[in-house]
Amino acid sequence: MHDRVLSGKQAINELYRTAYYGRPKGDTLELTLVEAAYLLYRKKLDIELDGRVLGFEDLFTEASKRQRYFELKYIVYRDLRERGFYVQSGVTDFRVYPRGGHPGKTPAKSFVYVRSERIPMPLSDLVPWVSAAENVRKQMILAIVDEESDLTYYEVKKVHPKGKTAMIQLSGDLIRATFLEDRVLVWDAASSQYLHQNGFYGKPLDDERLQLSLVESAYLLDLGLIRIMDSGTGNNLEIKTFSSLASSIDPDFLRKYGVYADLRNCGLVPKTGFKFGTHFRVYAGIVSTDKISHSEYLIHAITPDHLFMLPVTSRAVRLANSVRKRMLYAVRDREKMMYLDIGRIKM
Amino acid sequence: MHDRVLSGKQAINELYRTAYYGRPKGDTLELTLVEAAYLLYRKKLDIELDGRVLGFEDLFTEASKRQRYFELKYIVYRDLRERGFYVQSGVTDFRVYPRGGHPGKTPAKSFVYVRSERIPMPLSDLVPWVSAAENVRKQMILAIVDEESDLTYYEVKKVHPKGKTAMIQLSGDLIRATFLEDRVLVWDAASSQYLHQNGFYGKPLDDERLQLSLVESAYLLDLGLIRIMDSGTGNNLEIKTFSSLASSIDPDFLRKYGVYADLRNCGLVPKTGFKFGTHFRVYAGIVSTDKISHSEYLIHAITPDHLFMLPVTSRAVRLANSVRKRMLYAVRDREKMMYLDIGRIKM
Repeated sequence: MHDRVLSGKQAINELYRTAYYGRPKGDTLELTLVEAAYLLYRKKLDIELDGRVLGFEDLFTEASKRQRYFELKYIVYRDLRERGFYVQSGVTDFRVYPRGGHPGKTPAKSFVYVRSERIPMPLSDLVPWVSAAENVRKQMILAIVDEESDLTYYEVKKVHPKGKTAMIQLSGDLIRATFLEDRVLVWDAASSQYLHQNGFYGKPLDDERLQLSLVESAYLLDLGLIRIMDSGTGNNLEIKTFSSLASSIDPDFLRKYGVYADLRNCGLVPKTGFKFGTHFRVYAGIVSTDKISHSEYLIHAITPDHLFMLPVTSRAVRLANSVRKRMLYAVRDREKMMYLDIGRIKM
Repeated sequence: MHDRVLSGKQAINELYRTAYYGRPKGDTLELTLVEAAYLLYRKKLDIELDGRVLGFEDLFTEASKRQRYFELKYIVYRDLRERGFYVQSGVTDFRVYPRGGHPGKTPAKSFVYVRSERIPMPLSDLVPWVSAAENVRKQMILAIVDEESDLTYYEVKKVHPKGKTAMIQLSGDLIRATFLEDRVLVWDAASSQYLHQNGFYGKPLDDERLQLSLVESAYLLDLGLIRIMDSGTGNNLEIKTFSSLASSIDPDFLRKYGVYADLRNCGLVPKTGFKFGTHFRVYAGIVSTDKISHSEYLIHAITPDHLFMLPVTSRAVRLANSVRKRMLYAVRDREKMMYLDIGRIKM
């Protein structure tokens, strides 16, 4: 035994044929350590090591020395089995069969990856897992084990949000605005109303004036709809100058702006997600501001080298779900924007 | 005018005596820039600069050049005034009078500090504000302005959580446990049950064995109730060795343990707050595990040099309040533990 437990022909009949434990290899049944520990716990197996019969404590202690994250994997394996799923080990930690299905009858439904809440998870691990699962049409599931061995399951998938808000049009003069300390003000009542009602831009300062956020201002400037005067110099700002001013106020400006512009171009309306601790809350269904629908998404703009601190991710997803929104992470993937949807699921 | 606007005797009667704008200085009324801008918006004032009458746009642009965070302060001042409060400028950004009260009649009720969501707030700013307010029995309020000029008010106060869970006792042998890869297992069914039922320690692995978290194990070891064998060496671990092993698994271990032990010593039961993205969820009312009450607090252990990233804080508080818990931040303050309660309030 190193990290496999071997069982004889009888085991194939009793353990594999009835409940799909292990993998038959010729006349023997090969069990992983978690399978062996679980079968020992269920008293369906005796295990010998160097001629000595191992108790559960011995096997568990031994296995946790031989296999990294053995305890975590055991906790997840046991949970899935006790919920009635057939589970096989694979390239991913576990392949899980759909209810009513089993190896040989149906393909697996999900790929399950086990992580400890304590270990930060790089986006660069996650994306290949999601892509691999997507390529073979499996559900990608993260099973996260916390400090007290509680388990939370998350489904991760790529999504392509789309919305119904038309691109804003302008006939006539550019709208005049001023860049103050860290936000932009539109002074004129008609323009303020127009921007706010067509596309839900900005927030009224009062009944005449509109405050635009930095990303909103940049987008409207990029579309050529407004001109923004710098209150310091009195000059109109080019998009480049505006971007660098905005970046000096908000170091994440460019990353956020990339996501903002992509979402607007897809007909969505992103507004600040401050109250939810994310970059944006995003509306898919706004046609006019008379009827503002519930926002569907919370979206956070991350970098390709992002590390998910799992307690933080857990909080973000939990909060999003508690207000009936999906939590998405947006990251630039070559020339396109990729949106990863992370949601809690019940197995 | 630099950052004050001066008004004559008539103003004292019309602006101060009726609605407590500004501060009378001899025969003149001194107005801050936000007061002046608000009165201009309300069309109760004309303002001249170098002989020229200023419009709202001129004053606002000028004021935002002269005073840092002018726009933020204006947004908060306007909001408080429109909600019907009398507001005065003070050492804090604003002193706010209780409903029905006003300067000269009643003392102020709250000290309000204005911050932008974008600017991280050091704990070392916050603590003196809270202490100063506490010393004169005022409510300390943070007004946070987000990117789109939306406002959220938070009340911050020191609290002293207390619970009803008695200290665990042991008659007989020490409880035997093993330190595996990153958690501790109690193998014996009676001990497992005893620990779990008396003080809600650990989480059952199955019907016989109990898993203890690192902080739980350290606390029980410190109390002299268990002995923990290292699965690698077979030796029993001293608390010092255990702590340094635990710190190598979880770099925050010592900070978390300080808070854990303090809470346990106060009769509270802290369990992991992973699902909420905080260090602990904390129960005040557990007498036995037959009846587990709702957990009252989410508690995060921070360092004295902690910087509150306001979007993150906002999320933590919002999530805590959405599950009817208080969000507390615990920090060592000389020899004691200080708990800061941050909660959203409606003004």
